[in-house]
Order: sequence, then structure tokens, then C-alpha cells
Amino acid sequence: MRASEIAEDFPVVASDSNALEAARLLATNRLPGLVVTDPRGRPAAILPASQVVRLLVPRYVQDDPSLAGVLSESMADRVAEKLRGKTVAALLPDDRPELAVVEADDTIVEVAAAMARLRSPLVAVVDHDRIAGVITASRLLELALRER
Amino acid sequence: MRASEIAEDFPVVASDSNALEAARLLATNRLPGLVVTDPRGRPAAILPASQVVRLLVPRYVQDDPSLAGVLSESMADRVAEKLRGKTVAALLPDDRPELAVVEADDTIVEVAAAMARLRSPLVAVVDHDRIAGVITASRLLELALRER
Repeated sequence: MRASEIAEDFPVVASDSNALEAARLLATNRLPGLVVTDPRGRPAAILPASQVVRLLVPRYVQDDPSLAGVLSESMADRVAEKLRGKTVAALLPDDRPELAVVEADDTIVEVAAAMARLRSPLVAVVDHDRIAGVITASRLLELALRER
Repeated sequence: MRASEIAEDFPVVASDSNALEAARLLATNRLPGLVVTDPRGRPAAILPASQVVRLLVPRYVQDDPSLAGVLSESMADRVAEKLRGKTVAALLPDDRPELAVVEADDTIVEVAAAMARLRSPLVAVVDHDRIAGVITASRLLELALRER
């Protein structure tokens, strides 16, 4: 079984696309993250939903978490304002983890090895340098357990 | 809005429960991870699906990833054998990240701050020392964006 045969569609956003739209995609589809592609269409990074959640937290609470409990909650709904006009690239953490990428003809063991090595919940599958889908850890487990 | 009001049910497994059952839960529900509780019922860790995927990868491929491509794939279906008889606790990584835990009466800003600090895709909500549900990053975004 090859990576391209088990890859699934997954929401992908371009790094220069709108940050508010990306946040809506995460929220509507209840996703833990999105795959971000570079201008050539190649998967470049994961945008974790937890990174967007940072925008819900005012800077002075990030600096002193003990202040969070005494804050009014009205600031939570300012997130849309903070996202508007930003690109997805601006949301990505500087020290982001390496994105696991496999080739379309890689075997299931190669996929599992890449996922295990980077401790990633998903790998992006590329075919001729463009994203062809993703494989999640739970998808791999489903296949492995189904075969028994 | 308080944490207990927005918490949702989420599959939880006890640390002394069966590893094969936990893997099936991940696979069937297509989850990126499970919340693991200690013997007192308090959330103690996350079991990431990628950690279970490690069992699909033979030790000598973990040591030398270049061998993955030349392997037969039949070993992938030995995962059930490897899981049988193991506990969930035995699967947890030694250097696992801290589990984000909030109290039932914490505010949405406190929840967001805990999630952002640990860069966690979810936080466990406890009420009187027992798990009351989880809040995912995408759930928080959904609430924040809906209010606009």
C-alpha cells in the first residue's frame, strides 16, 4: 500500500491567504490545525489552532497568567479584529516544528516512520512537489487494525 | 462564560486500561489523541495517536529510517499483537508534554491562556478533582468567532 492510496483530503490554506478565513475554517470544521502551503503549492507548515487561540489572550496575560482570572471576557470577541488584514504566514510560530512530508509512492511503513520520528499527528503527501492529501495517525491505525 | 459551560465530552481512558482498546478508540473515532486519567480519575496525560503509530515501525527502522522503503509491509498488521496485554500507561512517552488542566469555574480567557502557554490542542476541565470534559482549541475559536 502506497501513501497516495491512503491519503485523504484535508483543508489546506496558502501562506499568503487571509488569517480570519483560516480561523473560520478551523472553527467550522473543528480542526486541530491546517496544512499551510508555500507559493509553489508545496506543504510548508502546520498552523495549529492553539496558535490562533493565542490571539484571544491579551499580551499582559501572556506575560502574567495570574491576571487572566480577573479580566473581563469582552476581549475574547476581539479576535476577529486582530485577524482581519493578517496573512496566515503572520500567524505561524517562529519555532514551528518540522512538517512531516512523504512522497506519493512511499510505503505505509515509511509513512509511519516519518510520523513517529516527528511525533506528528499527520503527514502531508506530495506528488510531483504538490500536496496530494494528508495521512493522519488515526487513519494509519485504522488501516493497521482493520487488517487483523 | 466558564470552562464547565463550554466543555465537551471526549474519549477518556484509564492509565491501567487495555492498550489495544485504546488504539481501537483512536482509530474508530479518528482521534488525534486520548485523555488518560490516573487511578483517582484525574486527567494525567494525553496519549497521542502518533505514539501508537510508533508500534507500526520496527525497531531497526526507527534506528535507520532508510530501511523503511525496502521492508515488506506485512509487519504493519502485527500492531494488534504488540498492543495486546499492554496497558495504556506503557504506551505513554517518558518525556510527554504537560497536560493542560483548567478548573470548571475558570473563565474563557484563563482557558485560552492555559492552551496558548502549553501550545496544546486541548485542555482538560476538572471539577472537584475529576474530569468534566475537554475544550479544544477549535471549540474556543468557534465561540470567539460566533460572538462577532
